[in-house]
Amino acid sequence: MEKSGWAGVLTEALPYIQKYSGKTVVVKYGGSAMVDEAFKRTVMRDMVLLSIVGIKAVLVHGGGPEISSMLERLGKESTFVDGLRYTDEGTAEVVAMVLAGKVNKSLVSLIHACGGKAVGICGVDGGMIRARRLRGERDLGLVGEITGIDPAPVGMALEHGFIPVIATIGVDEAGQVYNINADTAAAAIAATLGAEKLISMTDVAGVLADLGDEGSLIGEIGVGEVPALVARGVISGGMIPKIDSCVKAIGEGLKEAVIIDGRAEHSILLELFSDSGAGTLIR
Amino acid sequence: MEKSGWAGVLTEALPYIQKYSGKTVVVKYGGSAMVDEAFKRTVMRDMVLLSIVGIKAVLVHGGGPEISSMLERLGKESTFVDGLRYTDEGTAEVVAMVLAGKVNKSLVSLIHACGGKAVGICGVDGGMIRARRLRGERDLGLVGEITGIDPAPVGMALEHGFIPVIATIGVDEAGQVYNINADTAAAAIAATLGAEKLISMTDVAGVLADLGDEGSLIGEIGVGEVPALVARGVISGGMIPKIDSCVKAIGEGLKEAVIIDGRAEHSILLELFSDSGAGTLIR
Amino acid sequence: MEKSGWAGVLTEALPYIQKYSGKTVVVKYGGSAMVDEAFKRTVMRDMVLLSIVGIKAVLVHGGGPEISSMLERLGKESTFVDGLRYTDEGTAEVVAMVLAGKVNKSLVSLIHACGGKAVGICGVDGGMIRARRLRGERDLGLVGEITGIDPAPVGMALEHGFIPVIATIGVDEAGQVYNINADTAAAAIAATLGAEKLISMTDVAGVLADLGDEGSLIGEIGVGEVPALVARGVISGGMIPKIDSCVKAIGEGLKEAVIIDGRAEHSILLELFSDSGAGTLIR
Amino acid sequence: MEKSGWAGVLTEALPYIQKYSGKTVVVKYGGSAMVDEAFKRTVMRDMVLLSIVGIKAVLVHGGGPEISSMLERLGKESTFVDGLRYTDEGTAEVVAMVLAGKVNKSLVSLIHACGGKAVGICGVDGGMIRARRLRGERDLGLVGEITGIDPAPVGMALEHGFIPVIATIGVDEAGQVYNINADTAAAAIAATLGAEKLISMTDVAGVLADLGDEGSLIGEIGVGEVPALVARGVISGGMIPKIDSCVKAIGEGLKEAVIIDGRAEHSILLELFSDSGAGTLIR
Amino acid sequence: MEKSGWAGVLTEALPYIQKYSGKTVVVKYGGSAMVDEAFKRTVMRDMVLLSIVGIKAVLVHGGGPEISSMLERLGKESTFVDGLRYTDEGTAEVVAMVLAGKVNKSLVSLIHACGGKAVGICGVDGGMIRARRLRGERDLGLVGEITGIDPAPVGMALEHGFIPVIATIGVDEAGQVYNINADTAAAAIAATLGAEKLISMTDVAGVLADLGDEGSLIGEIGVGEVPALVARGVISGGMIPKIDSCVKAIGEGLKEAVIIDGRAEHSILLELFSDSGAGTLIR
Amino acid sequence: MEKSGWAGVLTEALPYIQKYSGKTVVVKYGGSAMVDEAFKRTVMRDMVLLSIVGIKAVLVHGGGPEISSMLERLGKESTFVDGLRYTDEGTAEVVAMVLAGKVNKSLVSLIHACGGKAVGICGVDGGMIRARRLRGERDLGLVGEITGIDPAPVGMALEHGFIPVIATIGVDEAGQVYNINADTAAAAIAATLGAEKLISMTDVAGVLADLGDEGSLIGEIGVGEVPALVARGVISGGMIPKIDSCVKAIGEGLKEAVIIDGRAEHSILLELFSDSGAGTLIR
Repeated sequence: MEKSGWAGVLTEALPYIQKYSGKTVVVKYGGSAMVDEAFKRTVMRDMVLLSIVGIKAVLVHGGGPEISSMLERLGKESTFVDGLRYTDEGTAEVVAMVLAGKVNKSLVSLIHACGGKAVGICGVDGGMIRARRLRGERDLGLVGEITGIDPAPVGMALEHGFIPVIATIGVDEAGQVYNINADTAAAAIAATLGAEKLISMTDVAGVLADLGDEGSLIGEIGVGEVPALVARGVISGGMIPKIDSCVKAIGEGLKEAVIIDGRAEHSILLELFSDSGAGTLIR
Repeated sequence: MEKSGWAGVLTEALPYIQKYSGKTVVVKYGGSAMVDEAFKRTVMRDMVLLSIVGIKAVLVHGGGPEISSMLERLGKESTFVDGLRYTDEGTAEVVAMVLAGKVNKSLVSLIHACGGKAVGICGVDGGMIRARRLRGERDLGLVGEITGIDPAPVGMALEHGFIPVIATIGVDEAGQVYNINADTAAAAIAATLGAEKLISMTDVAGVLADLGDEGSLIGEIGVGEVPALVARGVISGGMIPKIDSCVKAIGEGLKEAVIIDGRAEHSILLELFSDSGAGTLIR
Repeated sequence: MEKSGWAGVLTEALPYIQKYSGKTVVVKYGGSAMVDEAFKRTVMRDMVLLSIVGIKAVLVHGGGPEISSMLERLGKESTFVDGLRYTDEGTAEVVAMVLAGKVNKSLVSLIHACGGKAVGICGVDGGMIRARRLRGERDLGLVGEITGIDPAPVGMALEHGFIPVIATIGVDEAGQVYNINADTAAAAIAATLGAEKLISMTDVAGVLADLGDEGSLIGEIGVGEVPALVARGVISGGMIPKIDSCVKAIGEGLKEAVIIDGRAEHSILLELFSDSGAGTLIR
Repeated sequence: MEKSGWAGVLTEALPYIQKYSGKTVVVKYGGSAMVDEAFKRTVMRDMVLLSIVGIKAVLVHGGGPEISSMLERLGKESTFVDGLRYTDEGTAEVVAMVLAGKVNKSLVSLIHACGGKAVGICGVDGGMIRARRLRGERDLGLVGEITGIDPAPVGMALEHGFIPVIATIGVDEAGQVYNINADTAAAAIAATLGAEKLISMTDVAGVLADLGDEGSLIGEIGVGEVPALVARGVISGGMIPKIDSCVKAIGEGLKEAVIIDGRAEHSILLELFSDSGAGTLIR
Repeated sequence: MEKSGWAGVLTEALPYIQKYSGKTVVVKYGGSAMVDEAFKRTVMRDMVLLSIVGIKAVLVHGGGPEISSMLERLGKESTFVDGLRYTDEGTAEVVAMVLAGKVNKSLVSLIHACGGKAVGICGVDGGMIRARRLRGERDLGLVGEITGIDPAPVGMALEHGFIPVIATIGVDEAGQVYNINADTAAAAIAATLGAEKLISMTDVAGVLADLGDEGSLIGEIGVGEVPALVARGVISGGMIPKIDSCVKAIGEGLKEAVIIDGRAEHSILLELFSDSGAGTLIR
Repeated sequence: MEKSGWAGVLTEALPYIQKYSGKTVVVKYGGSAMVDEAFKRTVMRDMVLLSIVGIKAVLVHGGGPEISSMLERLGKESTFVDGLRYTDEGTAEVVAMVLAGKVNKSLVSLIHACGGKAVGICGVDGGMIRARRLRGERDLGLVGEITGIDPAPVGMALEHGFIPVIATIGVDEAGQVYNINADTAAAAIAATLGAEKLISMTDVAGVLADLGDEGSLIGEIGVGEVPALVARGVISGGMIPKIDSCVKAIGEGLKEAVIIDGRAEHSILLELFSDSGAGTLIR
């Protein structure tokens, strides 16, 4: 690229950067974007860039395949209840350990290697994610539902210039640890922080009008349109709880959410800093 | 106990509390005091008490037997070099995961269950413990030596009223994680914070003039007396590196260190808030 | 007491301490608890302890018998109106001088001798207690009623870590000084500060169902029950204005008030830091 | 005076006001300026004016004839040692009570009546004036000498916009109160605060070359010239300790001191805000 | 004037100074008071005096005859529309340049020569005065009407102890500069700042009941009386827009406005610091 | 450019951005880069970008040809002394007016149109550039030399998130305004602020080893090499004072200076955010 073209890119992004500077953006990081090491580094550099242009960037991550791999190595067999994995005490301990001790710290360490500043926080720290047993039809053991978010640890990190990297385990008053769904936690945190945007990285292009056709991407969905889209089967499967938690968070303080294709390079930057955006916007 | 006697205890402790209020005290927590669950809770309540009377209390913990147990469960065999365990990459990963994800979070969670406020921090967070491969005669793999402490994450936690609970893993600029000796790390952190006191919990009564006789406890050792005591074999074995790191820290900002008997109940409170003290003071 | 029992007391008090840490507690000090020098020192040490565990402790004191003694030494004879002492200008001057110059400073000085930090403040300082002549049926001279409390001097002292020790004289815009009832002033100050608790030290065990039987102590009185208890004569004599000012203060920002037996040692600590409590709680 | 002349005065004072705005000025108030009520009010209004133009004004007062009058009313006879009054415990108590409870509060109250903001502080408050028995040839009982000044209470008052009005009694660690010379205390406080100027109000025009001739006023004395002037008898009697404490304070942080004629109206304003100045400057 | 009389003036002004200390006062400076150099210096010294006694003084100035003079020197001929000057782009540029570059900077420089601290600000700085083309019956070119005031630049200057000196040009989002009436701008700024008083300097004594008789000055006008006074012709000509903008500002946050005779010396000080006041008060 | 390439540019610039984030960079803007309106806008957008990535960006500008043009329009003829223009009072006034009122405000307004925040400051504001008549061999009238820089107005602007845009006129204590060379002023301001870099935009590629050959650009010059390069004629003409003021500023607190080609697009961004740099670095 020629010199002035290069610099031109920077100034073209300017109005977009100005729009988000000083605002809070929560990124839910997960899926195949967490598998490849080189790709992980690219995502972390994007996070550092958000932080350097004055965005209060928060990273919430899932556990990827590392939890399954560790459970397997430890010979822990899983019981399934109506097709869902039952979390016994031993499993909950492994989940917490892998999420907060391995995945979380490896992301923090990558951000530092990119010249950024980050601290890892899990839901136990400062009692951030308060939880209890999920109350559903089936007993899933130590799968938790969120009863409250204390934003103090995240606020403290942002105030001191650190990118908070959050592992989504929850805790109750007796100190019991729970396995918390990362999409739900990211949405609840974004709502509590009054975030400008929640960016959810997935392994699809976004919400598709025709599931088999990536060209049929729906660019924007109003909160009120969601039930009809679910009824029509356009929003289906794992996308339902993801979008439900976005809708709930928008009702509680989040400005807007976007489902992006985490498989594409720099999808976070393209979403925030260009006109084309990426994926499906919910508001 | 009769009523006024009860309250009398509180006011008797007053002058000692006043002495430490507003000061930083670093507690190195390890050994058998980390094994029993009820005892762990007692120690954590003592930490909360320190914090409530205005002491800037910092907890630095080792890994206890949990690392060995996890390595065993994972079937990792250890290689030994001249009798010392060689830390290969897989081992380092397990150490980090168990320390920062399991032990650390269980202590944080206990403090919350006692009504206190804590956040877990490991050496990777905020790049707090910078390290490199230990340069010694033998190659021990990813055993690290500390090259610098960045007190920002700890200072931020204290400023916001949290007890920092620290897992002692280190990190270098490339993001490689190292296994760091907890005594060394506690001393380095205490020195960097200019702590008033480093309290090191051990499984002995302190330094004994006659190893076989717990009644021969040496109450105080001047920094200058250490070499002679080592030469005479009074300070020996695992006590040597422990005391060496105290001596080094005193030269770099720590006021004084004390080796206490972690097996006794409330030994931290007795050391700080009574005349008798406990264990061996080094200054 | 054996060692660990000693320290156990401290940690047993912990949940109670946590409950009040960071909150404002106003202690009305008076009666026979102000007579004995050794007892005075015990009370002041209790105040210092409150302050060291993070409670914003405020002491409001009466004049004890020292005013009468000084009036007598100066040969000032008192005129009585319907059995109440008429306060002429000379008497008001002596009251102010003894309260603000003698009693107040001796308490401040005792707190310092106990290792605490205190500043004496009277209602004239910073125009804290604004007053006018009491408007009642009889003219009592310079007996004042409070028209407003300016909490700035107390707030400034608390913010800088001092225990405010308050002498209850009032002042009007022309600079005239008034004699103010200490119970009334303590309640008004507690209300203005939005205090968590007003502890009123008296010479009785509390409100008794049967005046002659200390075993008939009423543990708690709802604000709404007071008129009936007055009508039935359970609340009578000097207890009436004391409880009336508590009720008024609870309506204006105070959380709760408690009448305790100032004759018992450490009654303040027992009230705050134990389950048994002490005296009669009003809320 | 015609209108524009009136306003002209204000702007003429401007450069002088600018010189002292933001600086600390300590006024030692005593002598006959404390006797007449109307005159007292004039002086207090001058203090309020200093404060309103941004000067950190501090008032240190003596006891005037009020102490003697109270001692007399109480029938306390004084013992004299080599012509100096011996201060026994009873006398010290009366001194403290009258200074801190009567004189001090009446000045604070006057300032409020003039629309200003003031708080009274004595040497016991916050342990501000630490003292011990004066060590001289003769035992004078509880006459104290200053061992240290803690400026925290004064600093706190200035920071919150109050004029600190200071009664000069001292206190030792055991809580014993001492009678402290007001000139000495004012100088020590001015030194500790690093004051721009100490203004000492006296009952003479200043230092006179010829004692009998008020026209022989010496306008300025260098610190180095003092011993010679004492030797020649120009500085004599009560002026010697007054000037000695100024000289000592200048060596410890005070910029300059001036001895003014407290009998003249507005002498503080004339000294600070006009070219003519007033009295004798020491630097 | 004799000495004590001189200082007496200062203390007489005290209650008036206390009334405005800490409050915001906006002075609209214009008319013949801007012509004479010595007189300009007198006004600037009055502004510095306001600032030294703790008033947040803001100066808003017009352009005086300097704009006309510069237009003439540049040979710019003016087109008139129904008797009003049409502002073409060239004229707007000259207006901005003379107001913000010449008049503004000469006032700032005068304040510094008087020992005060000032910064010049025009409506372009920090986008302070947002404007658009005046929407009226006739097209007047780049004569602007205010669409919003951003008080940040003024607040920043006041907070740092500078007197803001404001040139009244406006700017739109595209960066186009507009000629803004100074009376309107001063009123809008005073309203946005919630000023205590807007002082408008004019070339008449105030609003006169009988235009030809300066003795017929109306001391005070209620906001509600204005329409009737306009209808009766008492408020007429250039006084109408001046008073209209005051009335509008009072409805939007300004406390009161006063029209004073800028031709009289120290008229600002007389208005603020004396009982007689000056000119016509509107509230 | 394809999407990911576009975002890649942003992250490639990251390490360079991190290097300067939080640091002060002073840009001297002048020459032909100030002539074309579209080009001006490009430079201003670059300034806004610096500011958005956390750089404390300061713009110092010259007058371009606008001063000459205005002098000509006003018919002011210039006197020359040894080939240098003599600045009489009328000329100085025009210089100040054009620089501070026209050029400065048009740049501030452009930055706002680009979505940035800026305030214009000239050397008179806050007494920022103190000056006196240049003391040289020839009398050049009101050409000034800098006697001191008060960084308060610039610091205040940066602290509140504004880009300071500085017009280089100076002022003495009497309020006389001087014409100050913009290169000299930019260097003095950069030195006082302890800037990380001074970027000087010129109309050449940098310092050339062979004046006629732009390919002979010298990439870096040590401060010590300057005299020799001047002696050899490599640094000559107008480049001499420019580089001399850089050398002086480096001795007084500036880290390094760079002479860049202001005619190239985005030369500021290329200098700061790429490896190739641009122009000649002096350190």
